[in-house]
Amino acid sequence: MITSTANKQVKQICNWIKSAKDRKSDEVFIAEGRKMFMEAPKEWIKAVYASETFIKENEGNPVGARLKEFLTESVTDEVFTKMSDTRTPQGVLCVLKRPAHDLSEITGGKAPFIMILEDIQDPGNLGTIVRTAEGAGVTGIIMSEGCVDIFNPKTIRSTMGSIYRMPFVYVSDVVKVVKDLNGKNITTYAAHLKGEEPYHAFDYRKPTAFLIGNEGNGLSDEITEAAKVFLRIPMEGEVESLNAAIASAVLMYEAHRQRTTLKCLYDTLQRP
Amino acid sequence: MITSTANKQVKQICNWIKSAKDRKSDEVFIAEGRKMFMEAPKEWIKAVYASETFIKENEGNPVGARLKEFLTESVTDEVFTKMSDTRTPQGVLCVLKRPAHDLSEITGGKAPFIMILEDIQDPGNLGTIVRTAEGAGVTGIIMSEGCVDIFNPKTIRSTMGSIYRMPFVYVSDVVKVVKDLNGKNITTYAAHLKGEEPYHAFDYRKPTAFLIGNEGNGLSDEITEAAKVFLRIPMEGEVESLNAAIASAVLMYEAHRQRTTLKCLYDTLQRP
Repeated sequence: MITSTANKQVKQICNWIKSAKDRKSDEVFIAEGRKMFMEAPKEWIKAVYASETFIKENEGNPVGARLKEFLTESVTDEVFTKMSDTRTPQGVLCVLKRPAHDLSEITGGKAPFIMILEDIQDPGNLGTIVRTAEGAGVTGIIMSEGCVDIFNPKTIRSTMGSIYRMPFVYVSDVVKVVKDLNGKNITTYAAHLKGEEPYHAFDYRKPTAFLIGNEGNGLSDEITEAAKVFLRIPMEGEVESLNAAIASAVLMYEAHRQRTTLKCLYDTLQRP
Repeated sequence: MITSTANKQVKQICNWIKSAKDRKSDEVFIAEGRKMFMEAPKEWIKAVYASETFIKENEGNPVGARLKEFLTESVTDEVFTKMSDTRTPQGVLCVLKRPAHDLSEITGGKAPFIMILEDIQDPGNLGTIVRTAEGAGVTGIIMSEGCVDIFNPKTIRSTMGSIYRMPFVYVSDVVKVVKDLNGKNITTYAAHLKGEEPYHAFDYRKPTAFLIGNEGNGLSDEITEAAKVFLRIPMEGEVESLNAAIASAVLMYEAHRQRTTLKCLYDTLQRP
């Protein structure tokens, strides 16, 4: 049982939570909470810490069983609160090995469905996009190096576990990637004011990649020029733009709708 | 020029930012930032404070012109930073009168398109829903009293100005409101695990109300029972639910798609 915040492991974890650089050089990330612990792939787990209370509360249930297998050290509730990145810590925290995904894993397959994110800054937005992407059947996420660290603890939490299952890569030259996708007949769509047709006027059953830009500035000119098709997300009233995660969701779920059903509108029209 | 944080007006504003109760009893709210200042309806403005630097930077432009008309007091940059609720203050802040919307304003009209929110807790989620709702052409938002305060400064910021234009009301008995809407032939849809048909299988061109539940627990049993139709937002992978603002966006934009076009799927199918 760790009883002091001066403990070396505790200090190490606090540092990994704070420092993107150290997380990167040590090739780890931190995932907190019951759901994140339960869904973590076994082969990613390097260490698990849980609070006294959490351990007691989960005796005899599936969480307890998993703790028996993976718990590295128990810690006092007080120490856990110090280790935690959240205001109301759930009492369990994992140190995980980073997954290594490959660009070809994302762009390959029969009908790739890709999100390309340029300089997304908000950790919560990024995590929400990852979560929604899994829900909508996205095959992978490509991020510019200017995006926030996907291993940021707030991003990890917002993914609600989708980080474990959604392939993603950071690329240094995202414009080149867009051009390469165009060459592979994966249509690259940019939501842009230049777009004349609404987003639901295109066929996303074919290989598809959506480009989503920075929260404040949208897509850069370079990546916009590289995109094959401009589309428009219509907005009523005086709304000038949607939140990046919201725009992503609208596009991803339209693609999902098309990919899972062809007859929805016929049905709709025929309903009494 | 206000030069001290001990100033009575500064203290009053700090208190309004912190205290939902005092904002309520004084019937005001605080909106920060350039966009929120520029879009604020004139008749709502009770006071405007701006930092020295902000005033200087905007001399001779439309922001400066509006400042000339409405500025109550200039404050030093240092004092402004103390007054501000944000980490990187833009330098302008308004005290605004609260709008008074009426339930009949929201449920009336030819084809109402309503969001009903039960116990939404996250201020950012609520603001994002308000912003997306304006974009999707929603006619009004009905909230249970258990929802976070819409006048929370973080909510106000997340609305990106839509708070000025989107009618909303808090109601003490949201279940009764759902029943009343059913009686008025406004179909109430609950996104629920019980839903068998996907959300895009219904006709939202007719009077429509979507029910969205709390982030952690979803819709309560009471409101779920009152809903007329259950729908399903399909989710791939191991995703169990979507973020409340994301689920709202998917539903609202499907309704918008149906309300603005009937021929999209035909077009899609006929595209080469």
